[in-house]
Amino acid sequence: MTTSSATTALPALDWSTENCQVARTVAILGERATVEVLREVFNGVRRFDDMQRHSGVARQVLSNRLSMLVEEGILRRVPYRPDGARVRHEYRPTPKGFDLYPILTAMADWGATYLADPEGPSVEMAHRGCGAAVHAVLECEAGHRVDDPREVAPVPGPGAIRS
Amino acid sequence: MTTSSATTALPALDWSTENCQVARTVAILGERATVEVLREVFNGVRRFDDMQRHSGVARQVLSNRLSMLVEEGILRRVPYRPDGARVRHEYRPTPKGFDLYPILTAMADWGATYLADPEGPSVEMAHRGCGAAVHAVLECEAGHRVDDPREVAPVPGPGAIRS
Repeated sequence: MTTSSATTALPALDWSTENCQVARTVAILGERATVEVLREVFNGVRRFDDMQRHSGVARQVLSNRLSMLVEEGILRRVPYRPDGARVRHEYRPTPKGFDLYPILTAMADWGATYLADPEGPSVEMAHRGCGAAVHAVLECEAGHRVDDPREVAPVPGPGAIRS
Repeated sequence: MTTSSATTALPALDWSTENCQVARTVAILGERATVEVLREVFNGVRRFDDMQRHSGVARQVLSNRLSMLVEEGILRRVPYRPDGARVRHEYRPTPKGFDLYPILTAMADWGATYLADPEGPSVEMAHRGCGAAVHAVLECEAGHRVDDPREVAPVPGPGAIRS
Protein backbone atom coordinates (compact mmCIF):
# COMPACT_ATOMS: atom_id res chain seq x y z
CA MET A 1 0.00 0.00 0.00
CA THR A 2 1.25 3.49 -0.82
CA THR A 3 0.70 6.51 1.38
CA SER A 4 0.00 9.68 -0.50
CA SER A 5 -1.53 13.09 -0.27
CA ALA A 6 -5.29 13.26 -0.72
CA THR A 7 -4.91 15.77 -3.53
CA THR A 8 -3.38 14.27 -6.62
CA ALA A 9 -1.40 16.29 -9.13
CA LEU A 10 -2.01 14.65 -12.46
CA PRO A 11 -1.30 16.31 -15.79
CA ALA A 12 -4.35 14.67 -17.36
CA LEU A 13 -6.63 16.54 -14.96
CA ASP A 14 -5.54 19.86 -16.46
CA TRP A 15 -7.15 18.93 -19.77
CA SER A 16 -10.79 18.81 -20.68
CA THR A 17 -12.46 15.62 -21.87
CA GLU A 18 -15.21 17.55 -23.66
CA ASN A 19 -13.74 17.14 -27.15
CA CYS A 20 -12.08 13.75 -26.68
CA GLN A 21 -12.04 11.97 -30.01
CA VAL A 22 -12.06 8.56 -28.36
CA ALA A 23 -15.36 9.38 -26.64
CA ARG A 24 -16.72 10.64 -29.96
CA THR A 25 -15.71 7.40 -31.65
CA VAL A 26 -17.41 5.36 -28.95
CA ALA A 27 -20.51 7.51 -29.31
CA ILE A 28 -20.77 6.13 -32.85
CA LEU A 29 -19.51 2.58 -32.33
CA GLY A 30 -20.59 2.08 -28.76
CA GLU A 31 -23.43 -0.29 -29.26
CA ARG A 32 -23.26 -3.95 -29.86
CA ALA A 33 -25.68 -3.85 -32.80
CA THR A 34 -23.65 -1.19 -34.60
CA VAL A 35 -20.46 -3.21 -34.50
CA GLU A 36 -22.40 -6.33 -35.48
CA VAL A 37 -23.72 -4.53 -38.56
CA LEU A 38 -20.18 -3.48 -39.50
CA ARG A 39 -18.97 -7.04 -38.99
CA GLU A 40 -21.66 -8.28 -41.38
CA VAL A 41 -20.76 -5.71 -44.03
CA PHE A 42 -17.03 -6.42 -43.75
CA ASN A 43 -17.88 -10.13 -44.05
CA GLY A 44 -19.60 -9.43 -47.36
CA VAL A 45 -23.13 -9.67 -45.95
CA ARG A 46 -24.55 -6.45 -47.37
CA ARG A 47 -28.25 -6.93 -47.86
CA PHE A 48 -30.80 -6.18 -45.21
CA ASP A 49 -32.50 -9.57 -45.09
CA ASP A 50 -29.21 -11.46 -45.09
CA MET A 51 -27.85 -9.26 -42.31
CA GLN A 52 -31.00 -9.60 -40.29
CA ARG A 53 -31.07 -13.39 -40.56
CA HIS A 54 -27.35 -13.78 -39.99
CA SER A 55 -26.85 -11.38 -37.10
CA GLY A 56 -30.18 -11.88 -35.38
CA VAL A 57 -30.37 -8.12 -34.77
CA ALA A 58 -34.03 -7.02 -34.63
CA ARG A 59 -35.30 -5.45 -37.89
CA GLN A 60 -36.04 -2.05 -36.39
CA VAL A 61 -32.68 -1.85 -34.62
CA LEU A 62 -30.88 -2.98 -37.78
CA SER A 63 -32.71 -0.40 -39.83
CA ASN A 64 -31.82 2.38 -37.36
CA ARG A 65 -28.17 1.38 -37.21
CA LEU A 66 -27.84 1.22 -40.99
CA SER A 67 -29.39 4.68 -41.34
CA MET A 68 -27.07 6.09 -38.71
CA LEU A 69 -24.01 4.52 -40.38
CA VAL A 70 -25.05 5.95 -43.76
CA GLU A 71 -25.64 9.36 -42.17
CA GLU A 72 -22.19 9.23 -40.59
CA GLY A 73 -20.67 8.45 -43.99
CA ILE A 74 -19.42 5.04 -42.85
CA LEU A 75 -21.63 2.99 -45.17
CA ARG A 76 -23.15 3.87 -48.53
CA ARG A 77 -26.30 2.50 -50.12
CA VAL A 78 -25.89 0.90 -53.53
CA PRO A 79 -29.03 0.02 -55.53
CA TYR A 80 -29.52 -3.45 -56.99
CA ARG A 81 -32.50 -5.15 -58.59
CA PRO A 82 -33.32 -8.77 -57.71
CA ASP A 83 -34.79 -10.72 -60.68
CA GLY A 84 -38.24 -9.36 -61.38
CA ALA A 85 -38.46 -7.46 -58.11
CA ARG A 86 -38.31 -3.78 -57.19
CA VAL A 87 -35.03 -2.00 -56.63
CA ARG A 88 -33.39 -2.63 -53.28
CA HIS A 89 -30.21 -1.40 -51.67
CA GLU A 90 -27.16 -3.04 -50.32
CA TYR A 91 -24.66 -1.48 -47.96
CA ARG A 92 -20.98 -1.08 -48.65
CA PRO A 93 -18.23 0.56 -46.61
CA THR A 94 -17.02 4.02 -47.67
CA PRO A 95 -13.31 4.86 -47.25
CA LYS A 96 -14.25 6.21 -43.80
CA GLY A 97 -15.86 2.85 -43.11
CA PHE A 98 -12.87 0.86 -44.33
CA ASP A 99 -10.72 2.93 -41.97
CA LEU A 100 -12.55 1.24 -39.08
CA TYR A 101 -10.72 -1.98 -39.92
CA PRO A 102 -7.92 -1.46 -37.38
CA ILE A 103 -10.52 -0.99 -34.61
CA LEU A 104 -12.42 -4.13 -35.58
CA THR A 105 -9.21 -6.11 -36.04
CA ALA A 106 -7.93 -4.98 -32.63
CA MET A 107 -11.28 -6.09 -31.14
CA ALA A 108 -11.02 -9.45 -32.91
CA ASP A 109 -7.46 -9.88 -31.58
CA TRP A 110 -8.38 -9.08 -27.99
CA GLY A 111 -11.52 -11.21 -28.18
CA ALA A 112 -9.49 -14.10 -29.63
CA THR A 113 -7.10 -13.94 -26.68
CA TYR A 114 -9.59 -13.49 -23.86
CA LEU A 115 -13.13 -14.37 -24.93
CA ALA A 116 -12.97 -17.16 -27.49
CA ASP A 117 -14.38 -20.64 -26.97
CA PRO A 118 -11.81 -23.34 -26.06
CA GLU A 119 -11.73 -24.38 -29.75
CA GLY A 120 -10.44 -20.95 -30.68
CA PRO A 121 -11.80 -17.72 -32.17
CA SER A 122 -14.78 -17.84 -34.51
CA VAL A 123 -13.17 -15.46 -36.97
CA GLU A 124 -9.67 -14.62 -38.16
CA MET A 125 -8.45 -11.87 -40.43
CA ALA A 126 -6.47 -13.25 -43.37
CA HIS A 127 -4.08 -11.28 -45.56
CA ARG A 128 -5.39 -11.76 -49.10
CA GLY A 129 -1.88 -11.48 -50.44
CA CYS A 130 -0.33 -14.35 -48.51
CA GLY A 131 -3.03 -15.92 -46.33
CA ALA A 132 -1.29 -15.16 -43.04
CA ALA A 133 -3.35 -13.86 -40.12
CA VAL A 134 -3.57 -10.07 -39.80
CA HIS A 135 -3.35 -8.33 -36.43
CA ALA A 136 -3.54 -4.75 -35.20
CA VAL A 137 -0.15 -3.74 -33.81
CA LEU A 138 1.20 -0.50 -32.38
CA GLU A 139 3.90 1.36 -34.27
CA CYS A 140 5.30 4.85 -33.83
CA GLU A 141 5.91 7.33 -36.63
CA ALA A 142 9.64 6.84 -36.21
CA GLY A 143 9.06 3.24 -37.28
CA HIS A 144 9.45 1.52 -33.91
CA ARG A 145 7.20 -1.41 -33.17
CA VAL A 146 5.65 -0.90 -29.71
CA ASP A 147 4.97 -4.28 -28.14
CA ASP A 148 4.52 -3.13 -24.56
CA PRO A 149 1.60 -0.73 -24.13
CA ARG A 150 3.36 0.78 -21.11
CA GLU A 151 5.69 2.31 -23.71
CA VAL A 152 2.77 4.49 -24.81
CA ALA A 153 1.88 7.74 -23.05
CA PRO A 154 -1.30 9.64 -23.94
CA VAL A 155 -0.41 13.33 -24.32
CA PRO A 156 -2.52 16.42 -25.11
CA GLY A 157 -2.97 16.90 -28.85
CA PRO A 158 -3.20 20.20 -30.79
CA GLY A 159 -6.95 20.35 -30.09
CA ALA A 160 -6.62 19.82 -26.33
CA ILE A 161 -8.59 22.30 -24.22
CA ARG A 162 -7.54 23.28 -20.69
CA SER A 163 -10.13 22.35 -18.09
CA MET B 1 -26.86 -0.94 -60.65
CA THR B 2 -26.25 -4.68 -60.67
CA THR B 3 -28.86 -7.28 -61.46
CA SER B 4 -28.61 -10.39 -59.36
CA SER B 5 -30.51 -13.35 -58.08
CA ALA B 6 -32.65 -12.78 -54.99
CA THR B 7 -30.84 -15.53 -53.15
CA THR B 8 -27.26 -14.70 -52.36
CA ALA B 9 -24.58 -17.32 -51.89
CA LEU B 10 -22.20 -15.91 -49.32
CA PRO B 11 -19.66 -17.99 -47.42
CA ALA B 12 -20.17 -15.86 -44.31
CA LEU B 13 -23.81 -16.97 -44.10
CA ASP B 14 -22.73 -20.57 -43.56
CA TRP B 15 -21.18 -19.63 -40.23
CA SER B 16 -22.87 -18.82 -36.97
CA THR B 17 -22.41 -15.48 -35.24
CA GLU B 18 -23.33 -16.94 -31.85
CA ASN B 19 -19.75 -17.19 -30.55
CA CYS B 20 -18.27 -14.21 -32.42
CA GLN B 21 -15.43 -12.81 -30.33
CA VAL B 22 -15.92 -9.32 -31.77
CA ALA B 23 -19.49 -9.25 -30.47
CA ARG B 24 -18.24 -10.49 -27.09
CA THR B 25 -15.65 -7.72 -26.98
CA VAL B 26 -18.27 -5.11 -27.78
CA ALA B 27 -20.51 -6.56 -25.09
CA ILE B 28 -17.80 -5.52 -22.63
CA LEU B 29 -16.59 -2.28 -24.22
CA GLY B 30 -19.77 -1.19 -25.92
CA GLU B 31 -20.76 1.66 -23.76
CA ARG B 32 -19.40 5.12 -23.81
CA ALA B 33 -18.87 5.27 -20.05
CA THR B 34 -16.83 2.07 -20.04
CA VAL B 35 -14.37 3.35 -22.62
CA GLU B 36 -14.25 6.71 -20.84
CA VAL B 37 -13.27 4.95 -17.61
CA LEU B 38 -10.51 3.07 -19.44
CA ARG B 39 -9.32 6.31 -21.02
CA GLU B 40 -9.07 7.88 -17.56
CA VAL B 41 -7.11 4.95 -16.15
CA PHE B 42 -4.73 4.86 -19.13
CA ASN B 43 -4.27 8.61 -18.66
CA GLY B 44 -3.15 7.99 -15.11
CA VAL B 45 -6.43 9.12 -13.51
CA ARG B 46 -7.01 6.18 -11.21
CA ARG B 47 -8.95 7.40 -8.22
CA PHE B 48 -12.71 7.46 -8.11
CA ASP B 49 -13.19 11.12 -7.26
CA ASP B 50 -10.63 12.26 -9.85
CA MET B 51 -12.24 10.10 -12.52
CA GLN B 52 -15.68 11.31 -11.64
CA ARG B 53 -14.71 14.97 -11.76
CA HIS B 54 -12.62 14.62 -14.90
CA SER B 55 -14.90 12.44 -16.98
CA GLY B 56 -18.22 13.81 -15.79
CA VAL B 57 -19.60 10.24 -15.70
CA ALA B 58 -22.32 9.98 -13.04
CA ARG B 59 -21.12 8.42 -9.77
CA GLN B 60 -23.42 5.41 -9.90
CA VAL B 61 -22.55 4.66 -13.53
CA LEU B 62 -18.84 5.07 -12.81
CA SER B 63 -19.10 2.77 -9.83
CA ASN B 64 -20.93 0.11 -11.88
CA ARG B 65 -18.43 0.30 -14.75
CA LEU B 66 -15.44 0.05 -12.42
CA SER B 67 -16.94 -3.02 -10.70
CA MET B 68 -17.63 -4.64 -14.06
CA LEU B 69 -14.09 -3.94 -15.30
CA VAL B 70 -12.62 -5.42 -12.09
CA GLU B 71 -14.89 -8.47 -12.42
CA GLU B 72 -13.78 -8.93 -16.02
CA GLY B 73 -10.14 -8.83 -14.90
CA ILE B 74 -9.40 -5.67 -16.89
CA LEU B 75 -8.71 -3.42 -13.91
CA ARG B 76 -7.45 -4.26 -10.43
CA ARG B 77 -8.07 -2.40 -7.20
CA VAL B 78 -4.98 -1.26 -5.34
CA PRO B 79 -5.37 0.09 -1.78
CA TYR B 80 -3.87 3.43 -0.78
CA ARG B 81 -4.28 5.57 2.31
CA PRO B 82 -4.68 9.32 1.97
CA ASP B 83 -3.05 11.24 4.87
CA GLY B 84 -5.06 10.60 7.99
CA ALA B 85 -8.00 9.12 6.12
CA ARG B 86 -9.37 5.61 5.76
CA VAL B 87 -8.03 3.24 3.14
CA ARG B 88 -9.27 3.80 -0.38
CA HIS B 89 -8.64 2.08 -3.68
CA GLU B 90 -7.29 3.15 -6.98
CA TYR B 91 -7.72 1.30 -10.24
CA ARG B 92 -4.89 0.06 -12.42
CA PRO B 93 -4.94 -1.94 -15.64
CA THR B 94 -4.13 -5.65 -15.46
CA PRO B 95 -2.19 -7.25 -18.35
CA LYS B 96 -5.60 -8.04 -19.91
CA GLY B 97 -6.44 -4.35 -19.52
CA PHE B 98 -3.16 -3.19 -21.06
CA ASP B 99 -3.92 -5.44 -24.02
CA LEU B 100 -6.84 -3.13 -24.82
CA TYR B 101 -4.35 -0.47 -25.90
CA PRO B 102 -4.48 -1.34 -29.61
CA ILE B 103 -8.29 -0.96 -29.56
CA LEU B 104 -8.15 2.41 -27.81
CA THR B 105 -5.30 3.59 -30.03
CA ALA B 106 -7.18 2.55 -33.16
CA MET B 107 -10.20 4.48 -31.85
CA ALA B 108 -8.02 7.53 -31.15
CA ASP B 109 -6.57 7.30 -34.69
CA TRP B 110 -9.95 7.06 -36.40
CA GLY B 111 -11.41 9.79 -34.20
CA ALA B 112 -8.41 12.02 -34.94
CA THR B 113 -9.03 11.63 -38.68
CA TYR B 114 -12.80 12.00 -38.74
CA LEU B 115 -14.14 13.51 -35.52
CA ALA B 116 -11.57 15.95 -34.16
CA ASP B 117 -12.12 19.69 -33.82
CA PRO B 118 -10.52 21.84 -36.56
CA GLU B 119 -7.56 22.48 -34.23
CA GLY B 120 -6.79 18.77 -34.19
CA PRO B 121 -7.29 15.79 -31.88
CA SER B 122 -7.51 16.33 -28.14
CA VAL B 123 -5.18 13.44 -27.41
CA GLU B 124 -2.21 11.75 -29.06
CA MET B 125 -0.36 8.60 -28.13
CA ALA B 126 3.35 9.23 -27.69
CA HIS B 127 6.08 6.59 -27.77
CA ARG B 128 7.90 7.02 -24.46
CA GLY B 129 11.11 5.84 -26.05
CA CYS B 130 11.35 8.48 -28.77
CA GLY B 131 8.34 10.79 -28.44
CA ALA B 132 6.91 9.99 -31.88
CA ALA B 133 3.17 9.45 -32.24
CA VAL B 134 1.98 5.85 -31.94
CA HIS B 135 -0.70 4.43 -34.23
CA ALA B 136 -2.49 1.11 -34.59
CA VAL B 137 -1.52 -0.47 -37.91
CA LEU B 138 -2.37 -3.78 -39.54
CA GLU B 139 0.35 -6.35 -40.04
CA CYS B 140 0.19 -10.00 -41.03
CA GLU B 141 2.08 -12.81 -39.33
CA ALA B 142 4.32 -13.10 -42.39
CA GLY B 143 5.49 -9.57 -41.57
CA HIS B 144 3.66 -7.67 -44.31
CA ARG B 145 2.30 -4.27 -43.44
CA VAL B 146 -1.34 -4.09 -44.63
CA ASP B 147 -2.19 -0.51 -45.53
CA ASP B 148 -5.34 -1.19 -47.53
CA PRO B 149 -8.07 -2.87 -45.45
CA ARG B 150 -9.43 -4.42 -48.64
CA GLU B 151 -6.37 -6.64 -48.44
CA VAL B 152 -7.93 -8.24 -45.36
CA ALA B 153 -10.49 -11.04 -45.60
CA PRO B 154 -12.32 -12.28 -42.50
CA VAL B 155 -12.27 -16.10 -42.55
CA PRO B 156 -13.74 -18.70 -40.19
CA GLY B 157 -11.42 -19.43 -37.27
CA PRO B 158 -10.88 -22.79 -35.47
CA GLY B 159 -13.87 -22.06 -33.21
CA ALA B 160 -16.27 -21.24 -36.06
CA ILE B 161 -19.62 -23.02 -35.83
CA ARG B 162 -21.72 -23.87 -38.91
CA SER B 163 -25.07 -22.16 -38.89
